Amino acid sequence: MHQTFNAALEINLLHANQAGADRNRADFDRWGITCLNLMSGPGAGKTALLEKTLAALNGELKIAVIEGDMTTELDADRLRCYGVPVIAINTGRSCHLDAKMVAGGLHRLEHEYDPREFDLVLVENVGNLVCPAEFEVGEHGKVALLSVTEGEDKPLKYPIMFQEADCLLITKLDLAPYLDFDLERLAANVGQINPQVTLIPLSAKTGQGVDAWFHWLRSQVRVMGTQEAVAA
Amino acid sequence: MHQTFNAALEINLLHANQAGADRNRADFDRWGITCLNLMSGPGAGKTALLEKTLAALNGELKIAVIEGDMTTELDADRLRCYGVPVIAINTGRSCHLDAKMVAGGLHRLEHEYDPREFDLVLVENVGNLVCPAEFEVGEHGKVALLSVTEGEDKPLKYPIMFQEADCLLITKLDLAPYLDFDLERLAANVGQINPQVTLIPLSAKTGQGVDAWFHWLRSQVRVMGTQEAVAA
Repeated sequence: MHQTFNAALEINLLHANQAGADRNRADFDRWGITCLNLMSGPGAGKTALLEKTLAALNGELKIAVIEGDMTTELDADRLRCYGVPVIAINTGRSCHLDAKMVAGGLHRLEHEYDPREFDLVLVENVGNLVCPAEFEVGEHGKVALLSVTEGEDKPLKYPIMFQEADCLLITKLDLAPYLDFDLERLAANVGQINPQVTLIPLSAKTGQGVDAWFHWLRSQVRVMGTQEAVAA
Repeated sequence: MHQTFNAALEINLLHANQAGADRNRADFDRWGITCLNLMSGPGAGKTALLEKTLAALNGELKIAVIEGDMTTELDADRLRCYGVPVIAINTGRSCHLDAKMVAGGLHRLEHEYDPREFDLVLVENVGNLVCPAEFEVGEHGKVALLSVTEGEDKPLKYPIMFQEADCLLITKLDLAPYLDFDLERLAANVGQINPQVTLIPLSAKTGQGVDAWFHWLRSQVRVMGTQEAVAA
């Protein structure tokens, strides 16, 4: 968050975004879609994990992706290979997706498909460990990724993202043997910031741990399904 | 940059910051200090490189560090071991250092030391591959770091940081053998965005390539020294 401008402006900005996020969430709820917001620093492996996830779960679940990048459709093109709708949003100079951008993406989803057919929308945010955590887009849950190469101190140094996360994926576990990486120290640091978070170490490259991620993902879709059943 | 607020506000914000950066640069020039702004995503190895740099060059050059972090003084404490002044700035929820924050740091430097004694101030920015590139702090040069684990596509996906950089350090080269990493492809992508940048691959862990970085660093201090000599 750019705190250079004044506090009142900042509060207005976040309030306007929150109202837009609430409208997006109401759309998702109406369509019976679970939406998850994937966030991390650049290069932590969001797209690689989505590739693995689409390869494994597309078919079992009906998935669409909203792909946020400052420029290019490089990531969107990687995911289109898996035969799912990928809505690319270029944020330009903006360092995060906001509710208004995602509303534009949902408008395209509604125009090109019947959104009621989908179970799950995965939002891949701009690679940034700070700002995306403050801008809800209408998601039901937040997934943060941190790669083993980034260091165990990051939850303490960038607390907002880790406080907000429902699930924290520790990625690139295959590289851990080549680093001075201590998963227990990382888990202790995470515990100081967010003791409730579901922590899943994994490697999209080797597949280690990805079943636990798929299990968590299915549980989130089921929770939504149950809520709908209760509401009906 | 948060583009959610309107364009006029954004221009005002950047103009106000630029004026503050110009004042900081005038202070640096008056004191005969070269200032470099180190920027990267989180965990690319800025602090590890600074440790290596202070261990090698402290003594040959009189160095101070301005250390930006959202919270904690973890990085500042790592660098204080090297016996140089480290001015820690906690940015709170802000995703980057700005000129005003650095002005506060310079005020502390001036209060506690004679700033004319210093050759070089190294600013370690908040770990963020987007926003710091848009907020000058009064530096004479920008150094971007990208670790080999982050992927060759990053210059295309986060162009502003790479356009602005005078020197681009490709870090964690020791991990390259364990990745599908292609330095030539990365260099080609960098060339599309900023063909003038000085590109230095290195590993702070093994020491490979760090001499080229020290060489570039010395050349920057010399350039400033020459400018002073011309001005005198």
